[in-house]
Amino acid sequence: MSDPFVVVGADAAGLSAASKFRREAPDRDVIAYEKGRWISYAYCGMPYFIAGYVDRMSDLLSLSPGEVDEREIDLRRGHEVVAVDPDAKRVTVETTEGDRFDRAYGDLLVATGARATTGPFDVRGVDGAFTLHNMDAAAAIDAYVAEPDAYDPERADVSAVDRERADRNAAMPAPETVAVVGGGYVGVEVAEALTERGLDVHVFQRSGHLLPPFGETVGGRVEDALEAEGVAVHTDSPVEALVGDDRIEAVDVDGDRISFDMAVVGVGIRPNTELLDGTGVELGSGGAIRVDDRGRTSLPDVYAAGDCATARHAVTGDPDWIPLGLTANRAGRAIGATVAGDPTPVGHIAGTAAVKAFDAEAARVGLLDHEAAAEAGFDPVSETVTAGSRSGYYPGAAETDVTLVADRDTGRLLGGSIVGTDRAAVRIDTLATAVEADMTVAEVERLDLAYAPPFSPVWDPVLVAAKVLNGTLDD
Amino acid sequence: MSDPFVVVGADAAGLSAASKFRREAPDRDVIAYEKGRWISYAYCGMPYFIAGYVDRMSDLLSLSPGEVDEREIDLRRGHEVVAVDPDAKRVTVETTEGDRFDRAYGDLLVATGARATTGPFDVRGVDGAFTLHNMDAAAAIDAYVAEPDAYDPERADVSAVDRERADRNAAMPAPETVAVVGGGYVGVEVAEALTERGLDVHVFQRSGHLLPPFGETVGGRVEDALEAEGVAVHTDSPVEALVGDDRIEAVDVDGDRISFDMAVVGVGIRPNTELLDGTGVELGSGGAIRVDDRGRTSLPDVYAAGDCATARHAVTGDPDWIPLGLTANRAGRAIGATVAGDPTPVGHIAGTAAVKAFDAEAARVGLLDHEAAAEAGFDPVSETVTAGSRSGYYPGAAETDVTLVADRDTGRLLGGSIVGTDRAAVRIDTLATAVEADMTVAEVERLDLAYAPPFSPVWDPVLVAAKVLNGTLDD
Repeated sequence: MSDPFVVVGADAAGLSAASKFRREAPDRDVIAYEKGRWISYAYCGMPYFIAGYVDRMSDLLSLSPGEVDEREIDLRRGHEVVAVDPDAKRVTVETTEGDRFDRAYGDLLVATGARATTGPFDVRGVDGAFTLHNMDAAAAIDAYVAEPDAYDPERADVSAVDRERADRNAAMPAPETVAVVGGGYVGVEVAEALTERGLDVHVFQRSGHLLPPFGETVGGRVEDALEAEGVAVHTDSPVEALVGDDRIEAVDVDGDRISFDMAVVGVGIRPNTELLDGTGVELGSGGAIRVDDRGRTSLPDVYAAGDCATARHAVTGDPDWIPLGLTANRAGRAIGATVAGDPTPVGHIAGTAAVKAFDAEAARVGLLDHEAAAEAGFDPVSETVTAGSRSGYYPGAAETDVTLVADRDTGRLLGGSIVGTDRAAVRIDTLATAVEADMTVAEVERLDLAYAPPFSPVWDPVLVAAKVLNGTLDD
Repeated sequence: MSDPFVVVGADAAGLSAASKFRREAPDRDVIAYEKGRWISYAYCGMPYFIAGYVDRMSDLLSLSPGEVDEREIDLRRGHEVVAVDPDAKRVTVETTEGDRFDRAYGDLLVATGARATTGPFDVRGVDGAFTLHNMDAAAAIDAYVAEPDAYDPERADVSAVDRERADRNAAMPAPETVAVVGGGYVGVEVAEALTERGLDVHVFQRSGHLLPPFGETVGGRVEDALEAEGVAVHTDSPVEALVGDDRIEAVDVDGDRISFDMAVVGVGIRPNTELLDGTGVELGSGGAIRVDDRGRTSLPDVYAAGDCATARHAVTGDPDWIPLGLTANRAGRAIGATVAGDPTPVGHIAGTAAVKAFDAEAARVGLLDHEAAAEAGFDPVSETVTAGSRSGYYPGAAETDVTLVADRDTGRLLGGSIVGTDRAAVRIDTLATAVEADMTVAEVERLDLAYAPPFSPVWDPVLVAAKVLNGTLDD
């Protein structure tokens, strides 16, 4: 009997790998070590829990420990892998009970995820200041924004929850105003969520637009959508400091001090790679663990997947770090199959992403930024069009903005964005498919997309954009 | 100065060609002959006018004669081209005023469209029996279903409308029950429209399911959607005869005579090719005019486009006849460019189509039917899955059924269908793009589609289907 498949981290990538491996190699052992108490939760659902769209925190769990057990995966919560010895093929584990032991592995998957960065801001020990990067934070925010007498502890109905932290936050006076520091996904989603909870929300974005990876057109419309619901959006407004000793009192922005009784910092995340410090493992883009098309790191029999690992970009062909949920699930599943003896590619990434801001839906794919496209060796040309989401006469037709970016020499589609209020976000999958198929804009223009008045005009917004960009490329 | 570009038929294909030609070749003449009074209307919008979702018939006009004039296209309504002499490069024209003349052409586009067939049923001269294939029929149906004292003639606010026919129908007692004969697009859309108008609607479908080109899964769910709103759906129920001398009284179905005071027959359409009878032009699939990748017929300098012409199918590579709006617009536009001196492909078709039935959205693409796939030389394998349209915890997540068909030997995606109530139809464009890119199911499974809880679960329904079908292909 060979040594077990050891998985570090029991979230999307780790448990996808363990589950697939268990099905494909029923006779080999698989152990999943998780340093905390939470497993397999829907990170992306936390803002919707805070908003109140999702009633119970337990709804956000993809798999319970019991279900993992039923899959015959040896899950060890409260077990932190603190060292890897790739030569001896052994990990060192510390438990929350204070035990420490070594464990040999046949294959190892590092799926340690990422964590929220706070930039220059220290949110620890400051009441009312949060990041949103785990379920305990979501529970604490939910508790903090509730009036003490209206707090419903039943919402955070998962035994793993840090109840003491939630209760402490619930006991504080409810905030009235919140500074959301950073206008990325988390910032936009939290702005909506806390508006729904009745707060006066201000979003501070360092650069000129929200959601920089989505481009200016999307950023502008998302700003409009937030402002239409009462959110104050401050662009070109770098926050310099959070102010407050025990409890948040204000933020300093551009020389001004603005009072707030809550702050949520969403300025980025970074990959958790410390476990492999000193092993000589190769890192790549964004400081993530560099892997090949099978998810293998530069260390023998050591794989990495999910938010701590790179993946190959479909447009540039280079390893890139764009941590997203599907990437983690897919890579984990592929590695589970590979380790079980069925070599499976982890797949490319195209940076496909979508975000909601009240009734606005925004999405992006591929290379949108001209500078990034030029760095990758392309000569980017782009056009933005506004087109109807349905036939003009059909009720509910809504203006949909589509931006497409292509390479001037080859006409290849490099990326695009879509924003609107009617079925805008799912339309990005058409572009994602075209990007992954290396289509030219001329080929996109000739795609036989569905036309039916309630869902799309004769020329879908994607086709309108392709037609216009193709005209520019022909000039 | 060369002879003009003559266009026969001033609807989607004809006016797209004339408009593009005019822009690209401003110094050459273009004449568009239209035998009737209507031009460039949104055929697909007629059911929604009847339903009352669209207030005014004029909303369905894409271009008014005045706008065509502004484009400097020489539009002649009431001019029927009755003969083509391809050797002399000349057409013979008859006007509604009784004039008859010949006109030389440099290039000729036949864009004569298609017409509703009625099978064994004669709806002419029978009050209350209709087909729905032009705006006069839509106006007549709208008038017929209105109570005489509630009829609003302002709805049919286009001068071209056959007012006498509309007024005559308006004066008749309003019907209470309608037999919709045929359960294709028109049948399904008319069933919804007339339910909205308060009628007791029965749909009779010859075969075992509605919407045969969409496959059984879609047919079944569309039947459910119609029945949930009170429509009686009768499958395996071929109508044998319409009964009634002056006014419709009943239909004969399977030996039974069932009373109705209205009937709408939607049993198919056929291409209008009679103009080229005797010219020796090659016909193709469905009796449509066979054209090449530039829209050229077998006659020199004679093009055909739209519902009267074939187009090359992206999966089979063969000319096929699937008359749809985008195909007509795209081919017309391409031919306009080609005739102007810029050779442009008319593009492939993938049979991409979508239809709405109350809250159900259905769509299809490519080869779905196993028999058709086998005839085209493939070994078809298919799977159908039911998956969520959003993350399970997100409000509004709806069951979405996806069917994928692939070729066993190569794994190539041949076609698919999607049906559901939440953003189901537009998802077909992902599959259309994959079909046109000749992707395998394994490649579809690895697509980096957008994940965001309000719009899609981690594994989009399309990815779930690809995963399951890929598993079957691997066995």
